Amino acid sequence: MNFEFVDNGSITTPSGFLASGVTAGFKRSGAPDFAMVVSEVPADFAGVFTSCTFAAAPVRVCRKRVKESDFLQAVIINSGNANACTGEQGLAASEKSCQIAADSLNIAPENVAVASTGRIGVQMNMELIERGVALARKALTGDGGNTAAQAIMTTDTVPKAAAVKVEVNGKTFNIGAITKGAGMIDPHLTTPHATMICIITTDAKISKPQLQKILQRNANDSFNRITIDGDMSTNDTVLILANGTSGTVIEPDTTEEDAFAQALLALMQNLAKRMVLDGEGASKFVEVKVINARTENDAKLAAEAVGNSLLCKTAWFGNDPNWGRVVAALGYSGAQFAAEKCDIFFGDIPVVKNGGDAGTPEEALLETVKQREFSITCDFHDGDAEYWVWASDLSYEYVKINADYHT
Amino acid sequence: MNFEFVDNGSITTPSGFLASGVTAGFKRSGAPDFAMVVSEVPADFAGVFTSCTFAAAPVRVCRKRVKESDFLQAVIINSGNANACTGEQGLAASEKSCQIAADSLNIAPENVAVASTGRIGVQMNMELIERGVALARKALTGDGGNTAAQAIMTTDTVPKAAAVKVEVNGKTFNIGAITKGAGMIDPHLTTPHATMICIITTDAKISKPQLQKILQRNANDSFNRITIDGDMSTNDTVLILANGTSGTVIEPDTTEEDAFAQALLALMQNLAKRMVLDGEGASKFVEVKVINARTENDAKLAAEAVGNSLLCKTAWFGNDPNWGRVVAALGYSGAQFAAEKCDIFFGDIPVVKNGGDAGTPEEALLETVKQREFSITCDFHDGDAEYWVWASDLSYEYVKINADYHT
Repeated sequence: MNFEFVDNGSITTPSGFLASGVTAGFKRSGAPDFAMVVSEVPADFAGVFTSCTFAAAPVRVCRKRVKESDFLQAVIINSGNANACTGEQGLAASEKSCQIAADSLNIAPENVAVASTGRIGVQMNMELIERGVALARKALTGDGGNTAAQAIMTTDTVPKAAAVKVEVNGKTFNIGAITKGAGMIDPHLTTPHATMICIITTDAKISKPQLQKILQRNANDSFNRITIDGDMSTNDTVLILANGTSGTVIEPDTTEEDAFAQALLALMQNLAKRMVLDGEGASKFVEVKVINARTENDAKLAAEAVGNSLLCKTAWFGNDPNWGRVVAALGYSGAQFAAEKCDIFFGDIPVVKNGGDAGTPEEALLETVKQREFSITCDFHDGDAEYWVWASDLSYEYVKINADYHT
Repeated sequence: MNFEFVDNGSITTPSGFLASGVTAGFKRSGAPDFAMVVSEVPADFAGVFTSCTFAAAPVRVCRKRVKESDFLQAVIINSGNANACTGEQGLAASEKSCQIAADSLNIAPENVAVASTGRIGVQMNMELIERGVALARKALTGDGGNTAAQAIMTTDTVPKAAAVKVEVNGKTFNIGAITKGAGMIDPHLTTPHATMICIITTDAKISKPQLQKILQRNANDSFNRITIDGDMSTNDTVLILANGTSGTVIEPDTTEEDAFAQALLALMQNLAKRMVLDGEGASKFVEVKVINARTENDAKLAAEAVGNSLLCKTAWFGNDPNWGRVVAALGYSGAQFAAEKCDIFFGDIPVVKNGGDAGTPEEALLETVKQREFSITCDFHDGDAEYWVWASDLSYEYVKINADYHT
């Protein structure tokens, strides 16, 4: 098993996929806001979605596709209107959007999926969908993946795309992805879910049940590990399409399937990390690890409490090695552990020993917390379970972006 | 039953209490940082405390007092050092502080309680305690309550004190309180707890078990309802001392006890509200009410999710009537409810009807969200349980205060 990241890779790196990104008019700025991804042949697929009670109309349509459709052949994505909390009219609009795209591509609407991101509570302007589909259909190309990545951005500052080329047992295939999401990002859920929009393509041949199982597991170890602001969206969507055009077949429970799952995880983690680095106003990337906990759930509660703590996040923003705030967050997390056995490290430097000050001078810690990326490890000495999350800091810029954001 | 707030009331409004606030030297600024409260006679007492696993040394000492001491006669409070995560040395320092105060007042150390707030992880400077006790002892007066309120401030911008005078069945008594706490404030707990430092005095005569029961219940309906940043402190402490000097006796299960509990609740809610208004960087006070929920826990999960949502808080700061963020927070809260039955109001104005846009023009909502205080009501039409929280917004200033705060 071997895989490598492809330079400038994206959803059009795997063979048999076309993509485009155009300006339909959803964004007042005139920036690209409509993307289309098309497989030249029917593709097996899977999806994981927000667990929010107010799931948006496009999410409800995607869930129906996962349940009822045998394959997908196209995905349309708009940014600028989430089509959430729009009732039956919104649901009809998402279905109609698929119909418009299907007609334009001469395929059936049940083989088209839709994702939306942007303002909640605004009905879709169907003229913009018509325009987006017409323009995007015309602009489809075999190297349009990065353009599509640009069109799905909202408060993201950089487009996020990647692809890996995998070799296993003499066979090759590719996996590519685009993603967006710089706010409303939080992993605090017990069921598999996704926290943003991510479209993944592969030219491997792999069945729907295999894809669903692997995608859910990988989402738990990538997108579900990141926290920017602790808010979960109504529209979180991760879709994967497998069109088989590489000729490589991935059978269940084989080394090929392991290779596929591992390469896909690397790709999803790569994008998850870049989402945190591009988090709204984020200036820091902090890996919070809890090790030697009694149970994975204790480790998870503890790591997520630190990763979501506003006091920790503002300290990181301020280059403040204030471990007291980490301790306070662990303490209220609900995790079961013995405070007097807890050690904490910033990078490799001990800051807390047996629940108290490890005696490291603050100056020695400053070098670590000034870095753009660093880790905080909490060792509970109380078992062998562990969990980690990736967190951003909280800056003035986050507040500015979200106090002013109206799409 | 009748009660009224007393002008400039504080912990020295009830008879038989002395207080003072002085500069011991914990704060670099030279501002007052040490307070003492003394009852002229032994006082019945009760306390509720943080449920943080890393409870600070003074909290551990107070818990011991509640368990082992028959009465209290003095409380000392320092700001500038939390004495948290300081191990056995820290615990000894808190006990020693009580001893120093007891010696100075010629009472027993088990009748002295201690509270601390400030930086976590720093050992107490006992010379400063000695100095604080000596100065505070000398400064004790029968109208020193407001000075004490100043001395316990950290990032608070205004001292917070209040008192009520109660008349019931021809008898009178007073209850007074001082409180601090503008950050590390969150009610997100299932067990009774407090979220800051609050010292309450009364000249009613009321037993320890009655006080404990009433204090816990009232804390749940006041301090446990407020959220500023979702972080809970290691040092949260609420203490009440009842010295009986008014001559009014409060027997269990009487109208007098009801009157006491209600007046105390009004006092605690008054201070809780002022804590939110003085929350770090706060410019808004928002009451989030969830009504007609299936269970109180569903209502609580939903109200707390909205009150803690960074996206809601930044929208409030930005005068943005973005109800989509409220909907998203309700949706991920874990509360069980039917999205399609949910109505939401900003003040009295409907914004969401049956889970979708109520059609109110944004301009009509702007007037509401521009106010310093407003309410958001979420009606689940799904039962008869309800819950409310009081939340602040999230501003640049919050980030600035917490990125820079080193005591």
